[in-house]
Amino acid sequence: MTDLANETLDNSQSAASQLPTEQVSALLRELPGWVLKKVEDVERIEKAFHFDDFNAALAFTNKVAAIAEQANHHPALLTEWGKVTVGWWSHALGGLHRNDLIMAARTNELA
Amino acid sequence: MTDLANETLDNSQSAASQLPTEQVSALLRELPGWVLKKVEDVERIEKAFHFDDFNAALAFTNKVAAIAEQANHHPALLTEWGKVTVGWWSHALGGLHRNDLIMAARTNELA
Repeated sequence: MTDLANETLDNSQSAASQLPTEQVSALLRELPGWVLKKVEDVERIEKAFHFDDFNAALAFTNKVAAIAEQANHHPALLTEWGKVTVGWWSHALGGLHRNDLIMAARTNELA
Repeated sequence: MTDLANETLDNSQSAASQLPTEQVSALLRELPGWVLKKVEDVERIEKAFHFDDFNAALAFTNKVAAIAEQANHHPALLTEWGKVTVGWWSHALGGLHRNDLIMAARTNELA
């Protein structure tokens, strides 16, 4: 078991640092609820978080946004009534970096 | 030209109040940037708003959320770096009500 949430992000994202699918799958086993998706041919990891109403969902969106700003790594946050769907990927790579898994672990800690 | 943004929402959404596509199209001509979409077989209107960075996008998300709470009518808000995609539809109807066009007009006023 790794301690993903407390790892430091690597901001020197070289192309070589894109995670192979088998490594993503292995790390996802430590991240309950996160699934691998492909959106417009780019791999991302995604999870839907559920809440009692719109405001609670929005509050979570803002909490995730705060850790994103702090890490200078930004997700897609779909806010709906009672639900926030969070997606992480590395834009510069057009795919997944270990950073995304770290951010997913930190996102789980906010819920 | 109607004054959509200043209309009052009708909260007695009966099934009969679902807008026919031709009425939606006519009203969309007054709403620059909004397009009609179908997501999981439900019609919605959608528009992407662009910003300089993540925080500016998030601030807009919170502004739209505030008018949504006030009207007790809630959109889908996809917040990304420099971009917010806003979608309005009426969940109870499984489609579009005039309320959604009113909220789209109000959303344009926030940008």
